[in-house]
Amino acid sequence: MRVSIEGLKDYCWKTLTACGVPASDAETVSEVLVSADMRGVFSHGTIRMLGYVECLLSGGVRAEAERRIVREGPSNALIDAGQGLGIPASVYATNLAKEKAQATGVGIVNVFNSHHHGACGYYSQSLADAGLIGLAMSTGDVIMAATGSASRAIGNNPFSYSVPAGKYRAVCYDVAMSTVAAGKISIAADEGRSIPEGWLLSPAGEPTTDPKDYDRGGALTPFGGHKGYGLSIMVECLAGLLSGASMLGDIHAWNHDPAHSGNVGHLFVALDPKVLNPTVDMAGRVEEMIETLASARHAPGVSRILYPGQLEHE
Amino acid sequence: MRVSIEGLKDYCWKTLTACGVPASDAETVSEVLVSADMRGVFSHGTIRMLGYVECLLSGGVRAEAERRIVREGPSNALIDAGQGLGIPASVYATNLAKEKAQATGVGIVNVFNSHHHGACGYYSQSLADAGLIGLAMSTGDVIMAATGSASRAIGNNPFSYSVPAGKYRAVCYDVAMSTVAAGKISIAADEGRSIPEGWLLSPAGEPTTDPKDYDRGGALTPFGGHKGYGLSIMVECLAGLLSGASMLGDIHAWNHDPAHSGNVGHLFVALDPKVLNPTVDMAGRVEEMIETLASARHAPGVSRILYPGQLEHE
Repeated sequence: MRVSIEGLKDYCWKTLTACGVPASDAETVSEVLVSADMRGVFSHGTIRMLGYVECLLSGGVRAEAERRIVREGPSNALIDAGQGLGIPASVYATNLAKEKAQATGVGIVNVFNSHHHGACGYYSQSLADAGLIGLAMSTGDVIMAATGSASRAIGNNPFSYSVPAGKYRAVCYDVAMSTVAAGKISIAADEGRSIPEGWLLSPAGEPTTDPKDYDRGGALTPFGGHKGYGLSIMVECLAGLLSGASMLGDIHAWNHDPAHSGNVGHLFVALDPKVLNPTVDMAGRVEEMIETLASARHAPGVSRILYPGQLEHE
Repeated sequence: MRVSIEGLKDYCWKTLTACGVPASDAETVSEVLVSADMRGVFSHGTIRMLGYVECLLSGGVRAEAERRIVREGPSNALIDAGQGLGIPASVYATNLAKEKAQATGVGIVNVFNSHHHGACGYYSQSLADAGLIGLAMSTGDVIMAATGSASRAIGNNPFSYSVPAGKYRAVCYDVAMSTVAAGKISIAADEGRSIPEGWLLSPAGEPTTDPKDYDRGGALTPFGGHKGYGLSIMVECLAGLLSGASMLGDIHAWNHDPAHSGNVGHLFVALDPKVLNPTVDMAGRVEEMIETLASARHAPGVSRILYPGQLEHE
């Protein structure tokens, strides 16, 4: 089945407004979810609508949540998302970070009382589209093992950065801290395939190749061992602890427990190279970096050396 | 052989001042290198003295370099390290980031025209000791493969963050973007041991278990595949491109080419939780996080679940 982009956005918008979401917020959510689909990141696209609707209907997310800046300085802000949808709160926070960075060089905006916000890369990318360097990160419910744990201990805490790249589409790095995303394991389960050892621990805490072990309560593994685990702790601290959001097991799993507020936390950072270092042609340097990396001697069987986000842009 | 801490510092100080380094800078360098040894991070400790001396004597590093703030705002600064030693420039930049964060919530300080600065963790940790969240990162000469390259294409670009943890020593994450540090491979070469596949590419670009391939020009691999590679690009952009320092292959390898300035770049970020979110007891929350993670069900054979930096503190 093929659907038009506008048709898909319209479907999302109508569904969300029917749940009581204000028109402009519904437009924002539709835009962000469809944009993930368009980048091929289907796990963070309109597939999430059903979950959002469940949360809206069961009260875990407030349709008409009031966003409130509870603290603000020239370069920083803290936003209470009022238990609303994560996406409009994150777009609002990203815009605030942008304004602060354009005025002072740096904008750092924390959000608490929020919810799942789709792909982190959307927010950092939107900062890069404005000529800024952007970072975005978010806590999530506990689905990943700690280094040394047999069970779920921390979220896979997505992290993204983007950098404007002149004549190229922006560098856009957007990863979760697990070896692979849960969605990839669910797809393997649906298709009856086994998964490579190292992706998942069974509910007993042993390495497993059975993707169905994830829905039985198994834990994703951190990517790169303790190095990925340590980065998930960074995101937990910066997006969760600092913002005043819930931490670790106190973050309700929105897809299993839609009636409870997740109190997810986010952090958005914007840096304006024109303010921080106007003598540098940042985008020009990034172009040069991309070209230098692409021209490195290729490994056997490799046709191209890519930069983060290049594949998704294409 | 055992040497006293003071004796080791004194030896470093005397050597550096004999090379023309001002007394206070020599004291700073001695302090930082010995502190790495004390944390067991010998690869970034006093073992580096010989290389620093070579650079000082052959002119790649200026002993009496003048540090200069070339741009400054309430929350940001850009420092020209004047081709001097990286450690005193980094301590200076870290202190500046701290002052700005204490005043405005955030301090972001870039350094260019700098040199190897030892363990990144020293700088983020010193911010955590002052009650701040600290981040530190640095470019380095090209020793790691890009995802898809057969040869060295980028530095292993160290990255560190630290967070105050109340009654515990601070969370201190300090990693390079390679699967293992080059030092670990050199030790295996010295001891005549082979290394696991996945750590290193041979000069021909094939996976190798021979650690001697590193000195033959082989490339370290990024940790976690494209995820670690993407983080090395983040550090290249934030510490190198943004600061105006050299990039990629233009960064001279200080240990092989001591007579040329490396023009290494750094970035230091300080965040003051008391300014950004005074309603949150940040250190108390970090304590709780550490305890919750430590109490997760342990994997078979694991005696403790650690937080980043715990092992080095002990």
